[in-house]
Amino acid sequence: MKFSFLLVCCIITIYTHSQAGHSHRLERSLKFPDIAGYKTMKCDLHQHTVFSDGQVWPNIRVQESLKDGLDAISLTEHLEWLPHKDDIPYPDRNRSYEIALKEAENHNLIIIRGSEITRKMPPGHSNAIFIEDANKLLIDDSIKVFQEAKRQKAFTFWNHPSWTSQRPDGIATLTDMHRRLIREGLLDGIEVVNEHSYSDEALKIALDNNLTIMGTSDIHGLIDWAHDVPYGHRPITLVFAKTATSEAIHEGLSNRRTVVVHNNLLIGRDEFLIPLVEASLKIDTAYYAGKTDVLTVMIKNITSSEFTLQNKSGYTLHEHSDLVTIKAGEQQKIMVKTVKRLTNVDLKFEALNAVNAPGSHPVITLKVKVQ
Amino acid sequence: MKFSFLLVCCIITIYTHSQAGHSHRLERSLKFPDIAGYKTMKCDLHQHTVFSDGQVWPNIRVQESLKDGLDAISLTEHLEWLPHKDDIPYPDRNRSYEIALKEAENHNLIIIRGSEITRKMPPGHSNAIFIEDANKLLIDDSIKVFQEAKRQKAFTFWNHPSWTSQRPDGIATLTDMHRRLIREGLLDGIEVVNEHSYSDEALKIALDNNLTIMGTSDIHGLIDWAHDVPYGHRPITLVFAKTATSEAIHEGLSNRRTVVVHNNLLIGRDEFLIPLVEASLKIDTAYYAGKTDVLTVMIKNITSSEFTLQNKSGYTLHEHSDLVTIKAGEQQKIMVKTVKRLTNVDLKFEALNAVNAPGSHPVITLKVKVQ
Amino acid sequence: MKFSFLLVCCIITIYTHSQAGHSHRLERSLKFPDIAGYKTMKCDLHQHTVFSDGQVWPNIRVQESLKDGLDAISLTEHLEWLPHKDDIPYPDRNRSYEIALKEAENHNLIIIRGSEITRKMPPGHSNAIFIEDANKLLIDDSIKVFQEAKRQKAFTFWNHPSWTSQRPDGIATLTDMHRRLIREGLLDGIEVVNEHSYSDEALKIALDNNLTIMGTSDIHGLIDWAHDVPYGHRPITLVFAKTATSEAIHEGLSNRRTVVVHNNLLIGRDEFLIPLVEASLKIDTAYYAGKTDVLTVMIKNITSSEFTLQNKSGYTLHEHSDLVTIKAGEQQKIMVKTVKRLTNVDLKFEALNAVNAPGSHPVITLKVKVQ
Amino acid sequence: MKFSFLLVCCIITIYTHSQAGHSHRLERSLKFPDIAGYKTMKCDLHQHTVFSDGQVWPNIRVQESLKDGLDAISLTEHLEWLPHKDDIPYPDRNRSYEIALKEAENHNLIIIRGSEITRKMPPGHSNAIFIEDANKLLIDDSIKVFQEAKRQKAFTFWNHPSWTSQRPDGIATLTDMHRRLIREGLLDGIEVVNEHSYSDEALKIALDNNLTIMGTSDIHGLIDWAHDVPYGHRPITLVFAKTATSEAIHEGLSNRRTVVVHNNLLIGRDEFLIPLVEASLKIDTAYYAGKTDVLTVMIKNITSSEFTLQNKSGYTLHEHSDLVTIKAGEQQKIMVKTVKRLTNVDLKFEALNAVNAPGSHPVITLKVKVQ
Repeated sequence: MKFSFLLVCCIITIYTHSQAGHSHRLERSLKFPDIAGYKTMKCDLHQHTVFSDGQVWPNIRVQESLKDGLDAISLTEHLEWLPHKDDIPYPDRNRSYEIALKEAENHNLIIIRGSEITRKMPPGHSNAIFIEDANKLLIDDSIKVFQEAKRQKAFTFWNHPSWTSQRPDGIATLTDMHRRLIREGLLDGIEVVNEHSYSDEALKIALDNNLTIMGTSDIHGLIDWAHDVPYGHRPITLVFAKTATSEAIHEGLSNRRTVVVHNNLLIGRDEFLIPLVEASLKIDTAYYAGKTDVLTVMIKNITSSEFTLQNKSGYTLHEHSDLVTIKAGEQQKIMVKTVKRLTNVDLKFEALNAVNAPGSHPVITLKVKVQ
Repeated sequence: MKFSFLLVCCIITIYTHSQAGHSHRLERSLKFPDIAGYKTMKCDLHQHTVFSDGQVWPNIRVQESLKDGLDAISLTEHLEWLPHKDDIPYPDRNRSYEIALKEAENHNLIIIRGSEITRKMPPGHSNAIFIEDANKLLIDDSIKVFQEAKRQKAFTFWNHPSWTSQRPDGIATLTDMHRRLIREGLLDGIEVVNEHSYSDEALKIALDNNLTIMGTSDIHGLIDWAHDVPYGHRPITLVFAKTATSEAIHEGLSNRRTVVVHNNLLIGRDEFLIPLVEASLKIDTAYYAGKTDVLTVMIKNITSSEFTLQNKSGYTLHEHSDLVTIKAGEQQKIMVKTVKRLTNVDLKFEALNAVNAPGSHPVITLKVKVQ
Repeated sequence: MKFSFLLVCCIITIYTHSQAGHSHRLERSLKFPDIAGYKTMKCDLHQHTVFSDGQVWPNIRVQESLKDGLDAISLTEHLEWLPHKDDIPYPDRNRSYEIALKEAENHNLIIIRGSEITRKMPPGHSNAIFIEDANKLLIDDSIKVFQEAKRQKAFTFWNHPSWTSQRPDGIATLTDMHRRLIREGLLDGIEVVNEHSYSDEALKIALDNNLTIMGTSDIHGLIDWAHDVPYGHRPITLVFAKTATSEAIHEGLSNRRTVVVHNNLLIGRDEFLIPLVEASLKIDTAYYAGKTDVLTVMIKNITSSEFTLQNKSGYTLHEHSDLVTIKAGEQQKIMVKTVKRLTNVDLKFEALNAVNAPGSHPVITLKVKVQ
Repeated sequence: MKFSFLLVCCIITIYTHSQAGHSHRLERSLKFPDIAGYKTMKCDLHQHTVFSDGQVWPNIRVQESLKDGLDAISLTEHLEWLPHKDDIPYPDRNRSYEIALKEAENHNLIIIRGSEITRKMPPGHSNAIFIEDANKLLIDDSIKVFQEAKRQKAFTFWNHPSWTSQRPDGIATLTDMHRRLIREGLLDGIEVVNEHSYSDEALKIALDNNLTIMGTSDIHGLIDWAHDVPYGHRPITLVFAKTATSEAIHEGLSNRRTVVVHNNLLIGRDEFLIPLVEASLKIDTAYYAGKTDVLTVMIKNITSSEFTLQNKSGYTLHEHSDLVTIKAGEQQKIMVKTVKRLTNVDLKFEALNAVNAPGSHPVITLKVKVQ
């Protein structure tokens, strides 16, 4: 009946629910703070539509992303795998980008042109984003296609290196071809998170080879169903960009400034991971109650991920063991036995839901100024 | 361990939950708007503690009431039924009032001194509130006790006239003794709602005899359990008072200015019921969308009760049949087919969840000014 | 990454949540009971995909329908409105049917071949379902296309007669062309519900002209977003069919055996509406408690719609006024003041959420046998 | 109005909600499994009523405990602190026990006679439970009262050694008097959890001195409010008893067979803690999907506590980092990269929400048999 009913739906939804005094709803939009010197850009840079093997028109990808509060996306259609070819016979490989771009007009959502280079292992699947023309990537030779991508100034990354269809044991492993791509500057990043998977081995490859740590949804169907929205959410790559622009995201990615969010799990290099976690946990109040020498501290988690912290402060806690969890968007009271009254206290925690290397977690410091 | 831990709990609760971005919680505090000329005072004027046959200390009644957002309560201990007498042997009948008064210090909660006069039928149980001294009501004669209450300037009302322990068929029926009490000005009101019960017959008695319409929890155990908080709530009497004082509540009750709230059901005289319902439903916006002649109206229910409305406007609706429900605290969009564009529209609804007489519902008017 | 990941997702979801002891989840699958002599088939017979102006591949429509627990759907692409023609240039008008048919293999979901005949008013848009070949409906003449549909043994219905793009006042009105189509047996049904709209005037047209009462989602985007799943659900047509087959649905539709469900609103002829409501409300227990003459009855609403009932029994209730609501899937206790103990009680209710004509509601009877 | 309305309320609640298809409710009743050779008895052995400084009649304590699914409770009124003495002047110190015993008739809830010995520090407050007569404990001398308790065959424990009213720094510290009590066999246990507090130092004292590890609510007001039911729950002591009897609980306590549950935190000796955690996490299914060498394991947490596990298996996981959380009552899928297909896999986890010594967590093994 209606040719453009989604805007209407949005408005209705806002009207119907925004002021409800009794709401049971979980908030869907993803929240992560900026860090010193950078905008934190929420990106999902690996997605599909009917223009390759996905199951929705590109406008749905834009609408999902707006609901999720993303800042940038890329629709990275397979160049070589077109199961809908009987119905969509002459696809311009830039077509889903163009439709998305139009849909995103008047919204704060950056659409990045990209494509998936789809090969058997090695090198498996890879994405090239920030390209100029996807059609020009229709090149058989696996090295030459990366060279063309780079000629277009693309940022490239290896997709799902732990995918069990190409690695039945799920162990991401570098091949000679990958080593060559890296050596020749043709491969910039690697997915450590793809859809539901996380790979310790991919993280190690990233760290050992100075690759950008990436996480993407690789969505084909619906985000809501694949990620159990609003109870879960899609994986995203946080890119620390100097400004909120496409160019700045490109620069941030190229300089390895990312943290991947995979539900409650945050993966990144300490240089960005520690400031992100520290910015995520706000000290709201800190005081000694009554005549006690026990410090009450209210910590607010302003993100969409639950934090699991292990106390490394040297003080024991009055209500917790060494384990403290802080749910997404909630505030947690902790009581610190400082033995005597102090005016400044450094709370140190190992952030167990954050990973800076396989099996390794950053230790963060929350600086508390007593009121 | 802790001798006064409840204040601490409250503070903790506020800190822990007030800023939660993901809250699932239903709001507990009861909300009903003022009407023109009057403060709407939320009252529960029939409650018990361990000082008669209740199961909590009086301070718990104060705390429950604060959580429920009440403005006034009365702890109306049975004068004649003291099952805890072996343990509390010499009860001053004003004692629970005094403890509650102390607990309510520094809170906006009015404590009204009251007692329950506990007799077989007739006249059954009655409450006298705004009394001076409960001990002086220890009088055997059923008429004389009311006379003493009135000497103390009490407001009196007949409790649970439909109680199946005294009326196995649940049909509230006036006896000669009640007629005498009314005739002699000794009985002012009647409960049409007591705990979970509602009585059409009691409402008819109230209307036929010019009695104040009352609703109370008659709580003995815990409000939370008895009324399935926060999914349900206790019955209350809304008293329309000239100011937010004990005296003004007394005056309002004496002049029959009440509406009873029994979960979603509102019971009262049209004079107060209609303004209350009209104040409960706010028109937030009203406009004709696009090129249509269909008026979109956003109605916000600012109360804790769900409204069930039947359209009597003379216009049909574009998304609803004649039935429109608006959940507590939520906003509802309706689309009115006014046939042509109007600047002022009167929406008329029969409020089916409101009762002005047995089986009878008020018709209210929402005056809509089109933007 | 994954070329067929949705099945996997479903399995994961089932594993993860099916046994949760603490689940907060609302059930999505729609439930309505059979009535005597008929299977109640849940149908959504007006939907779109990328093959006309929809935004998903046909397999998503099948997956949505399975999640909603539907029995039959039709993907009724516009014959004349193909905004994706640049990308899908030579559409076989049966194509979305065929893709859906394949997707539905091994599921209990009937796919019905259909098309939307898309015209200015008159006659506006109409659907022809149970057709043999959609391509043969590419006929300019508005009468001839219906004749061809009928030659193919189609069931036809008028879509969204109250659509404000074609009727700015939203008032469904029969034109001469519609009268001719009806007279010549070319038009069988009419949508009284389309997407979010309901039309009293369309219902009157159905009743006055012996048309089948229809309700459809007319979905273009995502069911979950358009209907706020799981808090709301799409409109469906319940077809009372002799067996659970495509042919029996066709026969049921042709013989006007439908009730439309539009969230909590049920619309139909009394012949089917009354049995449906009566089958929806199950008496679980009925007893006189203690020494009372008040009958306790537990009524279970086994459907996905909330019922709003007005007591017409001649007995008053002990806890309710004349208004009783029973939430979807929940049980409600009512206490009936039968004055004396009876062994059989007929409870009569006007079902306000059910409509048998504009502003008119059926009265149903729940036969209670006291235990 | 009603003199015994709580049973009725319970029944109503059960009827109303038990079969709801759409329930949002969290389950309140606490669940922990038996371990080999023992019944796991859920106990809260430190509670107050109006008979000392609590705020409810003893029957409410029984009702709260039944709602929480407890197996045994003790109402341990202060012997020396009676703030309600003006109203309850001649308290038999066994009185709240007797009232609770009567209330618990016909329920599976064991009532244990107990008292709180209330002193300044040292020795602070202590409980004696399984006593014969509380009145005989009214002895001034702090040693003699313990001797009398022991003469009565009591089990005794030190209450809230970290209480900031007696230890402003919250650091539990053994005094000479405590050492004497322990040496002379007069003190059996120590609270490591009291109300909201947990104490690493108290745990160390328990381990160093072979004391029973105890956790109690020390409730004075309402369990529901103090512990934010159903989002949180009261602390309990799990006692591993040979049979489900009072005597067996006594024997289990005396032999130090306890684990304390403080919301998600479990505290105990490895001998009981490890079997408890292993029994709490059930392997439902384990299989290699498709052609992969990645083992899918479904783990069900059958308890009321959330588990936070750190993978120590030697295998990496396909969807998780080393951190796996399993919510109360829910199932969690993990995918284990075993490199090749195995028939038996030992999954080892450090249970971070379990504590066997300050800052120390048990490592548990889940034995997986592949299907």
